[in-house]
Amino acid sequence: MKIAVIGGVAAGTSAAARASRVEPEAEIVLFEKNKTISYAGCGLPYYISGVTTERSQLIMNTPEEFQENYGVEVRISHEVTAIYPEEKTLEFEDLVADRIGQEEYDKLIIATGARPMMPPIPGINFERVLPLRTVEDGDRIKRLSGDQNVKNVVIVGGGYIGLEMAEAFDRLGMEISLIEMQENVMPLVNRELAAKIEKHLQEKGINLITGEAVKEFVGDGDVSGVITDQDREIPADLVLFAIGVRPDTELAAEAGVELGVRNAIRVNHRMETNLRDHYACGDCAESINLVSNKPTWVPLGSTANKQGRVAGGNAAGGSNSHFGVLGTAITKVFDLTIATTGIKEEEAEEAGFSPVSLTVNVPNHAGYYPGFKNFVLRGVFDRNSGRLLGAEALGKSGVNKRIDVLASAIYSELTADDLFQLDLSYAPPYSTPKDAVAILGMVAGKKI
Amino acid sequence: MKIAVIGGVAAGTSAAARASRVEPEAEIVLFEKNKTISYAGCGLPYYISGVTTERSQLIMNTPEEFQENYGVEVRISHEVTAIYPEEKTLEFEDLVADRIGQEEYDKLIIATGARPMMPPIPGINFERVLPLRTVEDGDRIKRLSGDQNVKNVVIVGGGYIGLEMAEAFDRLGMEISLIEMQENVMPLVNRELAAKIEKHLQEKGINLITGEAVKEFVGDGDVSGVITDQDREIPADLVLFAIGVRPDTELAAEAGVELGVRNAIRVNHRMETNLRDHYACGDCAESINLVSNKPTWVPLGSTANKQGRVAGGNAAGGSNSHFGVLGTAITKVFDLTIATTGIKEEEAEEAGFSPVSLTVNVPNHAGYYPGFKNFVLRGVFDRNSGRLLGAEALGKSGVNKRIDVLASAIYSELTADDLFQLDLSYAPPYSTPKDAVAILGMVAGKKI
Repeated sequence: MKIAVIGGVAAGTSAAARASRVEPEAEIVLFEKNKTISYAGCGLPYYISGVTTERSQLIMNTPEEFQENYGVEVRISHEVTAIYPEEKTLEFEDLVADRIGQEEYDKLIIATGARPMMPPIPGINFERVLPLRTVEDGDRIKRLSGDQNVKNVVIVGGGYIGLEMAEAFDRLGMEISLIEMQENVMPLVNRELAAKIEKHLQEKGINLITGEAVKEFVGDGDVSGVITDQDREIPADLVLFAIGVRPDTELAAEAGVELGVRNAIRVNHRMETNLRDHYACGDCAESINLVSNKPTWVPLGSTANKQGRVAGGNAAGGSNSHFGVLGTAITKVFDLTIATTGIKEEEAEEAGFSPVSLTVNVPNHAGYYPGFKNFVLRGVFDRNSGRLLGAEALGKSGVNKRIDVLASAIYSELTADDLFQLDLSYAPPYSTPKDAVAILGMVAGKKI
Repeated sequence: MKIAVIGGVAAGTSAAARASRVEPEAEIVLFEKNKTISYAGCGLPYYISGVTTERSQLIMNTPEEFQENYGVEVRISHEVTAIYPEEKTLEFEDLVADRIGQEEYDKLIIATGARPMMPPIPGINFERVLPLRTVEDGDRIKRLSGDQNVKNVVIVGGGYIGLEMAEAFDRLGMEISLIEMQENVMPLVNRELAAKIEKHLQEKGINLITGEAVKEFVGDGDVSGVITDQDREIPADLVLFAIGVRPDTELAAEAGVELGVRNAIRVNHRMETNLRDHYACGDCAESINLVSNKPTWVPLGSTANKQGRVAGGNAAGGSNSHFGVLGTAITKVFDLTIATTGIKEEEAEEAGFSPVSLTVNVPNHAGYYPGFKNFVLRGVFDRNSGRLLGAEALGKSGVNKRIDVLASAIYSELTADDLFQLDLSYAPPYSTPKDAVAILGMVAGKKI
């Protein structure tokens, strides 16, 4: 049996590795158009800032190591240009040898990922206007931000990457402006919480501009400024363009693979596409939201890893499922941690629930133990069943643990009363006798 | 309606406070034999060591504040000496006025707690042989350990209090010996993990003696040494005696209240005893183990708080339940965190499961992010259903979060595959794309 995998980052390498474990006799070929595989994209901001000291730390396996460890043939700088599902053949371009080739397969795993949105704004093609997606992008930004002549950086987009990079550029001593087109940074987060993030960014000296879009990048030869739709001009020696990503699915679509939400590849729990023996996983694929039961697209490394494992196992003859996601996400913005899981009020209404939401200030641990801090916890519950549907948390300490407990609670369809009943660990350095999660449950119980 | 509460620490004050909220018209009287109510017993080691700087930080409410905040009449230095359930009357002794009195009630909440076991070992009554349970105990130990002539301390008992106090005494610059009668410290923890705790204690300079019992405390006027059953003599200017506690239930038993496991008061989910209108909660009461469905006795502040709330609410006419416990517990021993939840292999077998246990070394967060550490995670699963029955964790970082996620998973009867499916949060400072919990689930899945 021959399994071909397109894409060598989180999902593709997870799939190839798993397939080789499930069916050691299978011949597995992995195609990656870039030079690097198996890297931690989420680590790039920390590599750029120097918090992570070695580039090699971000790379779990070189192509040679991956080949060695898993018996997978890795072809870097190979871009797959066409898939012929009927013939089970794909066409690729060897970007180094400048050669076209063909490869047959019995099973195909599509893990083409996502790519940064780069709309045709005038000047977006300046060399120092850059996205951050690949290790190569990271190398470029690291080199430029180390240049003495590069002082002013403009970040376009106030999502996870934009905020993490604000911290990274600040650590490098740069002057930072951040432009977010929406009213608030982190548009997916509750407004009250987003306002707290904004206040924190301003305290850290970030020039924050919300509710304005970029109209043009200007400069002589390369970027020297950004002009917004309100004709504000901001000096810029470097622009990080991070307004979001979209699934990289043109190749699949041209081959007749069905797309779904936001043009991500439609898959079932087994990571099967509409075409027999063709799987998809990772940032190019859909998932199911476990609360609303609706298809969703949440491109995250954690999900990509799981979907890859399931796709690879099934392609190799196993029988695994990925049930779905809660859209759980977390990020560190300077001293703050912001996290979210489950669904928001609007989605809850659309899904037929009667959402009741509430915000509580809760302790990270015992008040008399050093490092005590309150943090903010929000919950969305269903009024009829009491079920927890979604949660958000923000603060300097305690967020990380509670969001995962609540993600587990949502997965298990627990109610407000269950949050009170949970027997969570207590000792003064770690929590309070009534944990933050229990407090959320108690207050919610009253409100419902 | 008149509600009497016996005991003013975690469960008693939770019960009184909740009752006053549920039925503001109720007359509530709280009896406490000591002078302090509503204190954080778990904070005493940190108060003694000076990590917590003010004694007042341990006390959530003084009697006056509690009376003010909740409209509860608080009678400190009042020891209840008899209960007459038929007459709904109790007898008390005012320890200050040296006076006997009687009080009638409609509902009684027994929250008499637990008390340190102090077996009749020769010399146990020396003044400098002390348990640590009340704030007054804490005051005495703090005063003595600040005394220049008190250099050598012997801790008898390697449970939570013994280990937390080892850290406290070390911080105060004392010479510490710790004697544990069992083969290992933390006898309820898996042996491999206990051995790691022991190694850590020894690295910290603790003179650790396991498998030996104390035969005698010797000294002229006060303790100067401890002699073990193997005739080892250890110098001691101060002895912390912390071999465990037992429920304080003689008063209740004499009144005809039925006792259960380890002489704790038998209660149902509503915290009702066998006597109508008589409730019990906290360290004097039983609970149900949610995995084995068997009565258990786990005296912990977190459970006491919840049981108190339920007992108080029900006594005041509400309708609440406490479903049970998982015995979740956590402690900090110098740089290590040790935590446990659910049941062990033996209990699992007794409860009719087919336990499969495994230990994995797992990352706290991304390897390239500062502070990366591996920690140990153990899981006990049922071979037939795949269900997670129990878990333990030990390490320098990451323990705290995972034990609570796993406690939530056990509560929800999740399986090994569910642990893989959980959509837990991922960003490099907080976890790995496959979280430690998912890794445990994956490895368990293979083993099952």
